Amino acid sequence: MYAITIPEPGGPEALVWDEVPDPVPGEGEVLVEVVASAVNRADLLQRQGLYNPPPGASPYPGLECSGRIVEAGPGVSGWAVGDEVCALLAGGGYAEKVAVPAGQLLPVPAGLDVRQAAALPEVTCTVWSNVFMVSHLRPAETLLVHGGSSGIGTMAIQLAKAVGAKVAVTAGTKEKLDFCAELGADILINYREQDFVEEIKQATGGAGADVILDNMGAKYLDRNVQALAVNGRLAIIGMQGGIKGELNIATLLNKRAAISATSLRARPLDEKATIVAAVREHVWPLIDSRHVRPVVDRELPMSDAAAGHRVLEESGHIGKVLLVAP
Amino acid sequence: MYAITIPEPGGPEALVWDEVPDPVPGEGEVLVEVVASAVNRADLLQRQGLYNPPPGASPYPGLECSGRIVEAGPGVSGWAVGDEVCALLAGGGYAEKVAVPAGQLLPVPAGLDVRQAAALPEVTCTVWSNVFMVSHLRPAETLLVHGGSSGIGTMAIQLAKAVGAKVAVTAGTKEKLDFCAELGADILINYREQDFVEEIKQATGGAGADVILDNMGAKYLDRNVQALAVNGRLAIIGMQGGIKGELNIATLLNKRAAISATSLRARPLDEKATIVAAVREHVWPLIDSRHVRPVVDRELPMSDAAAGHRVLEESGHIGKVLLVAP
Repeated sequence: MYAITIPEPGGPEALVWDEVPDPVPGEGEVLVEVVASAVNRADLLQRQGLYNPPPGASPYPGLECSGRIVEAGPGVSGWAVGDEVCALLAGGGYAEKVAVPAGQLLPVPAGLDVRQAAALPEVTCTVWSNVFMVSHLRPAETLLVHGGSSGIGTMAIQLAKAVGAKVAVTAGTKEKLDFCAELGADILINYREQDFVEEIKQATGGAGADVILDNMGAKYLDRNVQALAVNGRLAIIGMQGGIKGELNIATLLNKRAAISATSLRARPLDEKATIVAAVREHVWPLIDSRHVRPVVDRELPMSDAAAGHRVLEESGHIGKVLLVAP
Repeated sequence: MYAITIPEPGGPEALVWDEVPDPVPGEGEVLVEVVASAVNRADLLQRQGLYNPPPGASPYPGLECSGRIVEAGPGVSGWAVGDEVCALLAGGGYAEKVAVPAGQLLPVPAGLDVRQAAALPEVTCTVWSNVFMVSHLRPAETLLVHGGSSGIGTMAIQLAKAVGAKVAVTAGTKEKLDFCAELGADILINYREQDFVEEIKQATGGAGADVILDNMGAKYLDRNVQALAVNGRLAIIGMQGGIKGELNIATLLNKRAAISATSLRARPLDEKATIVAAVREHVWPLIDSRHVRPVVDRELPMSDAAAGHRVLEESGHIGKVLLVAP
């Protein structure tokens, strides 16, 4: 098969479409013929040599895919050759075939084509596990989503609205904020022109955000804690603004607030399967019924994955960038 | 009645035993004739003018007491005049009488005298709410308790052992560590001579602590995060080591770990009542059956509360310092 390889870490040009051996599904795994994958920020770090695949994972980038099952390894039940699926991966999505633990498979939702389903696994699993399973967002609470127009952001807005929460977003352009509003966001904050702490306080009668989904890490840490409500929960899923930040423990304690930080990729198989099962139970019906939809910025040929990486590096996109296999 | 007043903030001598008006129980409150109160770190801050009572609370210090109900206000059910009780307070324990919301009352456990019961409300409610309700310590997990010989520490050791967890403690002297071992602590760390991160890793086969109960705040923040296991939870309940500390978000994220910070005093009545009810359900049977006991360092006359404050400031105590009403 062909896959995107990284002979030497570097810029987008480091991604090379090359012939490699087919993967072989192990115990409890299926082999998926890939229709599409999608670009995640972690792929950019992996390309630069800053985020190695966990032990046992495929060496090729790609944390999600959609496609068809072409072979089932021993011990797989509930799935059959020919099923159209999408999947959460520890790597290897940028390829014509990938071996996937059965616990990380999801069916293609009703009314979606297989290609679009590649936009779903990472954002649904990340948002559901962080905003709902860890931070327990409840109806009538306020969620603040940084980067509201990203893949993660567009899914977080929709899922929070679907459970009856109020949603605030930050983004860097009017076009992006307008799109967030179309998805249902109630409070729109242009981070280039406004202070999100002030804006969220003003929009919530001084209370602040009950849950914050943050991809900035250190750069926003202190302001995120300021923006939290009493009993607020800050869920950190990225460090685009750096690793080490100053934490004001007195503010956290006075608010009886909490901070969590997680990533999906390094989780053991059983934790991934638990999250995927919860997403199938709670999120899939919302997609099947068209209350929630994948937001796709554009589709590119997988062999030109470099173009997809450039799109994310320039942050001009809204939603997910898909890579379509030949 | 008499109460400890603070005419001017200052050292222990600022505490003045003086005649003041009797409190009047409001809707849903009882009047307790105090037998004993106990000294908490927060009282030392209040004495120095650094921690004002929350709105509506008694101006006198004292966050817990034991005694007898001498009057029931309107709307109180389940409690009667003459009942021997102990209680979580928002203030006013250093007095001959105190008005208490009924949701913050607990019966005196079987086999304990009323005086000893004054050692229980703060430590049981703090440990149960943080270690179990927020941080969900589970059997076979490892709890690290900083200040293992404090009132909080001695209760945390006993409760964690009672649910089948492994317990590590830090303390500053061999005598204190020996006492923690008698209460059941498995891993003893002298913080003056040993690095607790190294010691906890070594004692857990490199894994680290699943839950840490911390009273140091900023000073220990970075090392606490280092000492956490994968999926670990750091519960901060004090800031004896400062307010602002550097948080390494990458370490937190790689461990999928969480940090919470809480205090009891500022919680609204319904949250206090929920915690007290959980303590009565889960902790009281362990005290009734003598699996868990209050640890009392010494008893002092309430009129000499200053002496009790000096004991805590010198950190020579093990367990709780009681103040006995005349």
